[in-house]
Amino acid sequence: MTAGRFISLEGGEGAGKSTQLRALAAALRVRGLEVVETREPGGSEGAEAIRALLLTGGADRWSPRAEALLFAAARADHIEKTIRPALERGAWVLSDRFLDSSRAYQGQGELSDADILALHRIGSAGFLPDRTLLLTLPEAEASGRARARDGDTTDRIGGRASDFHRAVADAFTRFAQEESDRVHGVDASGPAEVVTVRLLDAIEDLLP
Amino acid sequence: MTAGRFISLEGGEGAGKSTQLRALAAALRVRGLEVVETREPGGSEGAEAIRALLLTGGADRWSPRAEALLFAAARADHIEKTIRPALERGAWVLSDRFLDSSRAYQGQGELSDADILALHRIGSAGFLPDRTLLLTLPEAEASGRARARDGDTTDRIGGRASDFHRAVADAFTRFAQEESDRVHGVDASGPAEVVTVRLLDAIEDLLP
Repeated sequence: MTAGRFISLEGGEGAGKSTQLRALAAALRVRGLEVVETREPGGSEGAEAIRALLLTGGADRWSPRAEALLFAAARADHIEKTIRPALERGAWVLSDRFLDSSRAYQGQGELSDADILALHRIGSAGFLPDRTLLLTLPEAEASGRARARDGDTTDRIGGRASDFHRAVADAFTRFAQEESDRVHGVDASGPAEVVTVRLLDAIEDLLP
Repeated sequence: MTAGRFISLEGGEGAGKSTQLRALAAALRVRGLEVVETREPGGSEGAEAIRALLLTGGADRWSPRAEALLFAAARADHIEKTIRPALERGAWVLSDRFLDSSRAYQGQGELSDADILALHRIGSAGFLPDRTLLLTLPEAEASGRARARDGDTTDRIGGRASDFHRAVADAFTRFAQEESDRVHGVDASGPAEVVTVRLLDAIEDLLP
């Protein structure tokens, strides 16, 4: 049995995480590995119940602080019930978003990055991926993809939202600089098959 | 308009918190105060939804860590949506359990008291009651009351559970010693009306 590995895919909206996660999983299965595809928030029965709480109701249903605690609770359950058991039986786990999304989206405003990391330490003993693949796109291209997908010609990523998405992108870039062993930036522009090859290159050293 | 006050009632099972909360609320209303009666986990729409997650499913549905995060998320929502708005309009808020229950029940094992306090700092900026009334009973009397209420002649508070409840009681006692301005121990033995008078005495200095 080969050792299991935990890989998270991160990046802003429109970077192609979901598509690439499926393609990466398929490529790893071809190599004979068991692969578990999962996502956050969610990925276990309890975490999916928390996801339902997070995604329903009005925009002001949860304060940023309550939201951060719910994300951390869902992550604790996800790790304990899905990720760790899979790794223990030797499977590879690919997650569409993980801790760095909470850091980038929730840890740049009312709460700090240190707060989000403290929640992760208390909730999940600071458990980290073996590798985090950060899908990067020029902002204009990401906006275009997100608009095309949402079928929305008004600019929902414009105005203040644009500033927010830039802050998120900057945070992700900072994580890749500060934790360069774990977080690898991968160019997500160009044909999907080419991006998948880049992702495989970025985990080459972890493959059996 | 008088200033609102936030009072939490704490103590182990069978100490009479719910009964005394109703009696104390009635006594304060006689004095012309608006009183909001609430409880944890719960006390707001979002927190009650989290309470439903916490109280359903098997005993192993949530790990102690996930559970502590869910309690902290519920508390953040309870404070923001129910407690603060009531205090701001000058009402008194009486809560059946609050932070000290999380500290006593969840902060004495896998997680420390410092962990529970960190969650409260991140989730609720460390918001504390004006006074916490700790209802204390000799252990034998508390066990007897809980058994009588539950209609259960087997000893559900015996064995390992007895050690657990003793650790909880010790933790509450420690909070009363370490934070003697906020946490006041009140003897909960004897007739209910007598206990209510003791509770009123313990908040006398806060009354308008």
